[in-house]
Amino acid sequence: MGEWGVIAALTGRMPAGPLTSVGIGDDAAVIGAPSGSVVAAVDLLLEGRHFRRDWSSAYDIGVKAAARSLADIAAMGAVNTALLVALAVPGDLAAGWPLELADGLAAEAARAGAGIVGGDTARADSVLLSVTALGDLAGRRPVLRSGARPGDLIAVAGPLGRSAAGLALLSAGAAGQPASEALAGLIAAHRRPSPPYEAGPEAAALGATAMIDVSDGLLADLGHIADASAVTLDIGSSSLVTAGPLSEAAAFLGRENSNSKKSASYRTVPGSPLADIPLEWALTGGEDHSLVATFPASTQLPSRWRVIGQVRAAAGVGVGVTVDGAPHAGPGGWQHFR
Amino acid sequence: MGEWGVIAALTGRMPAGPLTSVGIGDDAAVIGAPSGSVVAAVDLLLEGRHFRRDWSSAYDIGVKAAARSLADIAAMGAVNTALLVALAVPGDLAAGWPLELADGLAAEAARAGAGIVGGDTARADSVLLSVTALGDLAGRRPVLRSGARPGDLIAVAGPLGRSAAGLALLSAGAAGQPASEALAGLIAAHRRPSPPYEAGPEAAALGATAMIDVSDGLLADLGHIADASAVTLDIGSSSLVTAGPLSEAAAFLGRENSNSKKSASYRTVPGSPLADIPLEWALTGGEDHSLVATFPASTQLPSRWRVIGQVRAAAGVGVGVTVDGAPHAGPGGWQHFR
Repeated sequence: MGEWGVIAALTGRMPAGPLTSVGIGDDAAVIGAPSGSVVAAVDLLLEGRHFRRDWSSAYDIGVKAAARSLADIAAMGAVNTALLVALAVPGDLAAGWPLELADGLAAEAARAGAGIVGGDTARADSVLLSVTALGDLAGRRPVLRSGARPGDLIAVAGPLGRSAAGLALLSAGAAGQPASEALAGLIAAHRRPSPPYEAGPEAAALGATAMIDVSDGLLADLGHIADASAVTLDIGSSSLVTAGPLSEAAAFLGRENSNSKKSASYRTVPGSPLADIPLEWALTGGEDHSLVATFPASTQLPSRWRVIGQVRAAAGVGVGVTVDGAPHAGPGGWQHFR
Repeated sequence: MGEWGVIAALTGRMPAGPLTSVGIGDDAAVIGAPSGSVVAAVDLLLEGRHFRRDWSSAYDIGVKAAARSLADIAAMGAVNTALLVALAVPGDLAAGWPLELADGLAAEAARAGAGIVGGDTARADSVLLSVTALGDLAGRRPVLRSGARPGDLIAVAGPLGRSAAGLALLSAGAAGQPASEALAGLIAAHRRPSPPYEAGPEAAALGATAMIDVSDGLLADLGHIADASAVTLDIGSSSLVTAGPLSEAAAFLGRENSNSKKSASYRTVPGSPLADIPLEWALTGGEDHSLVATFPASTQLPSRWRVIGQVRAAAGVGVGVTVDGAPHAGPGGWQHFR
């Protein structure tokens, strides 16, 4: 199958999207922007750095690549309308691989309500993808990182730490036969994040003052809101969900580690007692692509938004993120605190 | 300079763009789409496939990467509004290299009136760029590939074959000291294409029935219009500019070739007499990113549009592109004719 054959096959698998007036096949696509503005973000995913072909299927990688960009649009409070995908693959890749990737991209785009409207393909030594997502604000103002105010609630929609726990399990060699359904669920969460896209426009409608998607870890991403808003964001550790699968994964990995004497496959804090691993995953694990937002204290939040902390004036400890009132000593805590 | 330092330095070099309401620095950008729709295209550029770092400066590569995507928007008849750039570079690249690249991107974006509103960066073993361009139709309908009608004129804005001639000179080792200003100009045209962006919206306003940018070569790209419009496009070879620099380059390369006995660095037609090299460059050379469009025969064209042929019904020779009434036998002619 030559390049044109692949493109034709890929094109047939892509959802058109409700707002697409010119899709794949011309010099450029034309997509409706009913608000009179367009929200746009791009993310790059490289084999060996953002994914591994032996740990994730082509379908998984497609889902993940789409989710990463779609979540950025949701985090502005916008509705996703379209994706453009640039893809390079090695010449010796099985012909079915790009098609499975396309199916993953298509499924996740459809879940977010977006069409796949354009792309470009090339040969490269390893797989690389660049996904551009477009969205519409439906008349609302974008929710920026800079609007958090002292007294606001901090709330999250979607899980925290599940992708990191799944990655730790994969790193420990648990890909083949996970010990339980719960652990298999964590591995799946790493392979195919499932951002709560609808929660983005919902937060905007509820009056969210700031929002971001959790791609680098809760502390790191809240650090961007703290910086942009010049406030302190304090997280209550007891509000984070660490019981259940995260605890089970930590216990499993602890047993594996003591059995095999291999180096720990999860992060511990150098020079300190063994950290609370599930809490560390929840605080610093990336790639869940959940949405975290700040809201005026009086906001009545729907149940998918879990309150996890409060915005404080930066006067006390300075601009940054605290856990239970103090800078977090674990990995990923200090780097974004100053 | 760490990743954040590079991003900060890059960001400071990017034009904001007149329609940008949220630029680099949040989860996504927000750009005006006054027409209520957005035109979007993405292109991928890979080191070793689309450019060579020993043949082009970082600035040149930035210009070329931007031009490639900006020309796609113009070819729809739209005005460019914004670029998003995903960039990966090797860790051992000099710190100044990405900054020069950013300057090239910024200069070309500014020439097209677009802001650079977002991006993503990563490490990779070689340089790769993905550039997404966004545009606005200013209330006009997009000019598609499918609207050419028998009797329409075919006209081009911008040069043809100059980039291919420049590439041939570079391939022959002429990078260091071109023999003349004219040859240096061809090399510059290959390194830094200069698409006539304003000609795109101009063509739409003049009633262009189909349009495309010349990225793969005139015959190949007109082939897309022929296919989409189900017509024959006939080019008059005498209307193409082959005297001057193109002829000078062909003569120079012919002398180089006979002197050095190296294999010809330009394409010849296997099994046929030596082709008319300047004509081949004009017909099949890519990457000039000029705009070629079809117009109703009565259209009064401004001087930058040169008439080069006519649209005919496909009844005679079939759907495709002809030169002086017959399928072109040179390389790049047959592949898009059927």
